[in-house]
Amino acid sequence: MPSSVPSVAVVGGGVIGLTVAWTLARRGHRVTVYDPVPARGASWAAAGMLSPAGEAWFGEESLLRLGLASLDRWPATAHDLEADAGWGPELRSEGTLLVAATDDDAGTQARLHALMASAGITHRLLSRREARALEPALHPGMHSVTEVLSDHSVNNRTLVAALLAACARRAVAFVEDTADVMTDTGTATGVRTRRAGRHRRHEVVVVANGVGLADTAGVPGWLRTAVRPVKGEILRVRTDRPALQRTVRADVRGRAVYLVPRADGEVVVGATSVERGYDTAVTAEAVHDLLHDATEVVPELRDATFVEATAGLRPAAPDHVPLVGWTGVDGLLVASGHHRGGILLAPWTADVVAALVAGDEPPAGWDTTDPRRFTGPAGAGLADLQETR
Amino acid sequence: MPSSVPSVAVVGGGVIGLTVAWTLARRGHRVTVYDPVPARGASWAAAGMLSPAGEAWFGEESLLRLGLASLDRWPATAHDLEADAGWGPELRSEGTLLVAATDDDAGTQARLHALMASAGITHRLLSRREARALEPALHPGMHSVTEVLSDHSVNNRTLVAALLAACARRAVAFVEDTADVMTDTGTATGVRTRRAGRHRRHEVVVVANGVGLADTAGVPGWLRTAVRPVKGEILRVRTDRPALQRTVRADVRGRAVYLVPRADGEVVVGATSVERGYDTAVTAEAVHDLLHDATEVVPELRDATFVEATAGLRPAAPDHVPLVGWTGVDGLLVASGHHRGGILLAPWTADVVAALVAGDEPPAGWDTTDPRRFTGPAGAGLADLQETR
Repeated sequence: MPSSVPSVAVVGGGVIGLTVAWTLARRGHRVTVYDPVPARGASWAAAGMLSPAGEAWFGEESLLRLGLASLDRWPATAHDLEADAGWGPELRSEGTLLVAATDDDAGTQARLHALMASAGITHRLLSRREARALEPALHPGMHSVTEVLSDHSVNNRTLVAALLAACARRAVAFVEDTADVMTDTGTATGVRTRRAGRHRRHEVVVVANGVGLADTAGVPGWLRTAVRPVKGEILRVRTDRPALQRTVRADVRGRAVYLVPRADGEVVVGATSVERGYDTAVTAEAVHDLLHDATEVVPELRDATFVEATAGLRPAAPDHVPLVGWTGVDGLLVASGHHRGGILLAPWTADVVAALVAGDEPPAGWDTTDPRRFTGPAGAGLADLQETR
Repeated sequence: MPSSVPSVAVVGGGVIGLTVAWTLARRGHRVTVYDPVPARGASWAAAGMLSPAGEAWFGEESLLRLGLASLDRWPATAHDLEADAGWGPELRSEGTLLVAATDDDAGTQARLHALMASAGITHRLLSRREARALEPALHPGMHSVTEVLSDHSVNNRTLVAALLAACARRAVAFVEDTADVMTDTGTATGVRTRRAGRHRRHEVVVVANGVGLADTAGVPGWLRTAVRPVKGEILRVRTDRPALQRTVRADVRGRAVYLVPRADGEVVVGATSVERGYDTAVTAEAVHDLLHDATEVVPELRDATFVEATAGLRPAAPDHVPLVGWTGVDGLLVASGHHRGGILLAPWTADVVAALVAGDEPPAGWDTTDPRRFTGPAGAGLADLQETR
C-alpha cells in the first residue's frame, strides 16, 4: 500500500463514491470522480433513513453493528459537510416509530425488538396516548407503536447535492463519463473513460459504482458477480404542513412500509424489494401497495399531493453485507454492495477506504466487509446463492 | 352575422379551439389561435373516449343526443384530419365493455341500460365465455359485462398534435399568448394579448379556452361565472403487449373507473371528478383508488409500468351541457363547458360554430347549448347551482 499521497480515482459518484472522494480530499489526496451522471442512481431514489435498528434482521447482526458504527459518525459528518458545502443534509434526530398495524404484525416486530435489546438499542412501547401526542396523524387503530430514539434520517437528495459542493470545495475533479479499470500485471494503473476513450493514470482506484460494478472492465470476475441489483420502488408525496415529525416504519398485514418526513411537508414512502435484474420500471402494483399501506398508517396522506414515483437499484452481495476493501489487485479498492444501507453506511465506508489508502488500521468491523470473502473456497457457495435471484 | 369571410380569433388551443380553427380554415376563413401553451390543458390530460352511451346519465338526455350527433361525425373528422396532418387520431372502433364488478354495481348500470335502450343504442349482455373471448385480461369474477359496439375512442394526444399540424397546413396562425376580448359598444373588435400587450383586430372572436373562460376579460360576467372547474385525475400505465383491445368502463363497488387502451400497450386509467377550484394537484388517494379499481377489473395491470399521473380541469356548466353559440355581444362566440365530453363533442361543436360564423343554419340540437340560457330569468337559478361547488 502506498505511503506517499497517491492520486485516487473514484469510479461512481453516488453517496458512497462522493463521501469517499470528499473524505480522501479532506485528508490531502488528489481525487477524481468518474460518473456519467453524478448524484443520481440509487442515492437519488433513496429515502435517507439512518435506521440500523429499524433495518435490523435476524442473521444480519454484523450488518447491524456496522450500521451503529456509521450512525455514530453521522453528526460529525453532517457538521463537516455543512462547513464545506454551506448546507447540511437535514439530519433529523427525532427518532423513529415502529408501528405494527395488527396483532400478527406485532408478532413480527417482537423478533426485531429482541434483536435490538441484544444489541443494546433502547426502545420503548408507547401507550396510545403517548403515540398520539408524538404523531397525531397516526391512525389510532394501529396495534402497537414502539419508539426507537436512536434511528434518524437525512434528506438523501440534499445530502448528495451537499457532497457534490463539498467535493468541489475540496478540489475533487469530476469527469462525467463511465470509467473502466486499467490493470497491468496484477496492478491497477488507472482508468479508461468509456465515451472519451482516455486513459488516466492513478495510483489507487476505488470502484464505488453500486450495481455498475458488474459492468466494470478490469474488476476481477468473482467480484463483478458478487453484486446483484435489487430494485426499490419509492414514492414522494407532499402536504401543505408536515404530516409527521419523525420516521415511521410500519408492518401492515405482513408488508413493510416506511414514511420519512421532510421539514417542507414532503413524505418519502418506500419501498419495494424486487429481484428482476436491471429493470427500473415502477409497477402499478408498487404504487398501489405503497399508497395503500402508507394511507392505512397515516390516513390524512390520502389528501397529499402525489409528487413522484421512482425506482433505484440497490447493489446487494449474497450475504447482504457490503463489499469494502482491497480486491486482490494492487491499488484496486471496492466500496459497493451496500444494499439498503448506502446512506447510513457512507461515513463508515469512507473511513475504512481512507484508512486503507493511507495504510492505517481501519475502524473495527472492516474485516466483515472484506470483499475477498467471495474468492477461493469461501466463495464457493456463491453460485448457489446467485440462483435465488 | 357577417356575410363575407371574416377574420376569426380563436381564444384557446385545446381540442375545441383547434377543431374550431381547423374547421373554419378549411372553409376559407382567416384564423388565428391564441394560447400560451397550445394542445395542453384538459385535452392533454383526457383519455379520448368517444363514449356517449357510457357517459349517459339520467337527466342528461340532451347531452346524450349531442354526443351521438358528434360521434356520427368522428369517422369523417378522423379521415379529413389524416388527410391534412399526415396522421390520424388513432380512432378505434372495437366498441366498449361496460363492466359491473358486483351485483350492486349491476343495479347501477341497469339504469344506464334503460337509458341506452330508450335512446336506441344497442347493447348486449355477454356470457362469461363471450366476455373472456373478447378480453381475456378481464377478471373472471366480474358480475356482468355488457358490450356497446357504438362507443369508441381516439388517442387524445395524437389528436391534438394532428390538429396542430392540420391547422398549420391550413394556414392557421398561432400566437402563444393569453388573449382577452376587446369590445366596443357591445361589439367584439378583436383581442388583446396579455403578455405582449398587443391589440389585434378580428371580426369574430370565439372563446374556446375551457376553464380559462372565467378569467377572460371582455366576456360578459354572467358567462364568465357559468363555467366551473371540475378536476379529473388520470393515470397512464404501460404493458409490453396490449392488455385490452377495447375501452372498459367499470363500476367497482360504487366507484367508476375506465380503462382506454392504445395500440402500443399504454392504458389510460381514469378518472376522478373533484370540485376544488383551480387546484390541479394529483392526490395520493386518486392514484391509489384508480389503481385499486383498475387492477381489480384487469388484474394483470398490477405488473404494468406506472407511467404518469396527471390532472386536468374540465369546464362544467351548471347543467353540464356545453356552452356553444353567440353571447349577446356582437361578433363574440363561446365554445366551452364541455365538461367530460370535449374530445367527443369537438366535431359537432366546430360545425355549430362554423355555421354560426357563416350565418348558416347550425346542426340540430344547437339550441340546447345556447349559452344565453344563463342570462335573464332563465339564468336566475344559476346562483343556487353555483353554491353546490
